Amino acid sequence: MRRRSFLSAAGQGLAAGTAVLAAPAIAVEPSVRWRLVSSFPKNLDTIYGTAELFARQVAAMSEGRFQISVHAAGEITPPFGVVDAVQQGAVECAQTAAYYYFGKDETFALGCAIPFGLNSRQTTAWMYHGNGLRLMREFYRNYNIINFPAGNTGAQMGGWFRKEIKSAADMKGLKMRIGGFGGRIIERIGAVPQNLPAGDIYAALEKGTIDAAEFVGPYDDLKLGFNRIAPHYYYPSFWEGGAQLDFYINTKAWDALPRAFQAMVETAAAQAHVDMQADYDAKNPAALKELYANGTKLHPFPRDLMNLAFKTSMDYYEELSAKNPAWKKVYSDYNTFRRDQNLWFRFAEMGFDEFMQAQKL
Amino acid sequence: MRRRSFLSAAGQGLAAGTAVLAAPAIAVEPSVRWRLVSSFPKNLDTIYGTAELFARQVAAMSEGRFQISVHAAGEITPPFGVVDAVQQGAVECAQTAAYYYFGKDETFALGCAIPFGLNSRQTTAWMYHGNGLRLMREFYRNYNIINFPAGNTGAQMGGWFRKEIKSAADMKGLKMRIGGFGGRIIERIGAVPQNLPAGDIYAALEKGTIDAAEFVGPYDDLKLGFNRIAPHYYYPSFWEGGAQLDFYINTKAWDALPRAFQAMVETAAAQAHVDMQADYDAKNPAALKELYANGTKLHPFPRDLMNLAFKTSMDYYEELSAKNPAWKKVYSDYNTFRRDQNLWFRFAEMGFDEFMQAQKL
Repeated sequence: MRRRSFLSAAGQGLAAGTAVLAAPAIAVEPSVRWRLVSSFPKNLDTIYGTAELFARQVAAMSEGRFQISVHAAGEITPPFGVVDAVQQGAVECAQTAAYYYFGKDETFALGCAIPFGLNSRQTTAWMYHGNGLRLMREFYRNYNIINFPAGNTGAQMGGWFRKEIKSAADMKGLKMRIGGFGGRIIERIGAVPQNLPAGDIYAALEKGTIDAAEFVGPYDDLKLGFNRIAPHYYYPSFWEGGAQLDFYINTKAWDALPRAFQAMVETAAAQAHVDMQADYDAKNPAALKELYANGTKLHPFPRDLMNLAFKTSMDYYEELSAKNPAWKKVYSDYNTFRRDQNLWFRFAEMGFDEFMQAQKL
Repeated sequence: MRRRSFLSAAGQGLAAGTAVLAAPAIAVEPSVRWRLVSSFPKNLDTIYGTAELFARQVAAMSEGRFQISVHAAGEITPPFGVVDAVQQGAVECAQTAAYYYFGKDETFALGCAIPFGLNSRQTTAWMYHGNGLRLMREFYRNYNIINFPAGNTGAQMGGWFRKEIKSAADMKGLKMRIGGFGGRIIERIGAVPQNLPAGDIYAALEKGTIDAAEFVGPYDDLKLGFNRIAPHYYYPSFWEGGAQLDFYINTKAWDALPRAFQAMVETAAAQAHVDMQADYDAKNPAALKELYANGTKLHPFPRDLMNLAFKTSMDYYEELSAKNPAWKKVYSDYNTFRRDQNLWFRFAEMGFDEFMQAQKL
């Protein structure tokens, strides 16, 4: 910026020095129109709502010259088809969770959440002020994508179980609906991961086709009604300590944007990013209380399960590093960042939170 | 920024579906010019840098039509004079920490941090999706201010002590530099709070005029060199579990803005908000390691001191509620929100963080 100097005291008088010389006169017609396809349904208001916020702010800032229409999962593309759609230029923009695409390349998972990864704030720190965004964008270039972090769920719950899990051994043969990359780990400790769309989970759990199901956290889970058919609610989701959502933008569409519109995308995405975490944090407590009042039993995962899953994860990441160079490049940076973050967070953050959570408030 | 080539490649090779109908034709002259005065010096890059980011993004989005010049503490107004300057309309905008103004009204402190208050994420949740922003804006209207959350430091460190603090009794008579509202509490437990500007702390601590000093956390504290003269570094800052910074805007200047510019302020402030926390999180670990390598001794505050300070704080908040109706109105909402947040954070967030921090990574 700069050009800072003009102003001295020009135009005193007006709202305290504010100089509105002319109302910006802009053509009313939109000059850029984009479509944004979401991997999520409208009733997931915490996530879907931030895509709408993003579009609304871009339209407001551009005085309608830059319009983004938002489309729910299935309206234009299937939920997990959005990456292909953006890559091929069929749409300009998508809202999704990177880890859905680990089947294309495991490196996608690092853009969202991996088991025993960074928590929400740490993920944002890695993206914005570590090497995260730079490294992920380098990777996404292979898919004609430039990404913008656009929300985080925070640490999720570990999900709903029909029977208690008393030790790691109880995971053997357990059929569990689990989203994203976590399936790779619970598979290695003997469970049977299943990836079902949100709308099919309830019926599968009710019929006993699956024994357990995780989704997000109290607010979203309560809506889906899992508490009515599985009494045991475990925490934490060790596979989603802070799952990031993203806007994916086709690189040609991005390059064609005027610089001002690019800046609007960047700031509106940042607002969506911080807004979603705040929304989840504000809404989860009431849902948790409602679940508890209705008989849900809260349990921490058994420590031996956590320990086994941790070791399994670290071994698996080493394996991946040996065979996937893209993973290796991004993960080695992520790994160092994670070590440093956990070193620091144990002092002021943990000291404060641990004390506050022990108080009667 | 600079209006960089709108549409160099207008038309050609656009991603399918992108419709650029016309290059936006905008007058080159800025039509709005604002001055932003900061309470902070330029060398506090984590904080001051977000004011520059804010101004840069607004200029980029408006193609230079909306220019905000950023001024360090003392350049136009003294560090703590910025509220008066905005209230009177001498400048349009300020960057500050609300708790500096608790002498005007204790309610200001709730906009930033109070002892044993919300942590960083919880503060943002209260502001964005609780009643926080609405209630604080109602309060700020008395000062002709509309505010935008614009950063958070995260939980701070408890500061530098020349001698070890082994129990609450060691605080008696201790002369301590402490910022903001925390002074009210440590005074009630027998210490002598002193509010010195950043630049004067080092000399006072070196000479023994004060016995202890807190500032922010490892990254900022290392720059000021406190570790060279006080070996004991305590945590956490129970008075700053998540200190929020704000942009304060004069309400007349705000009302005079075109709606598009208002939206730019809102999104650019949100970006500044999330960016500052990420910046602190990314920078603190290396500084902590450097301090530790150079002999700094890390200690948690003694539990009896934490307990005494907690009880003292809660009693004081009740006292305030009895005599300050503005405080009572905002605090009663804050109090409920804090209870619910700490109820929820102890499950997934704490379960995840506690496990991760116990691992060798």
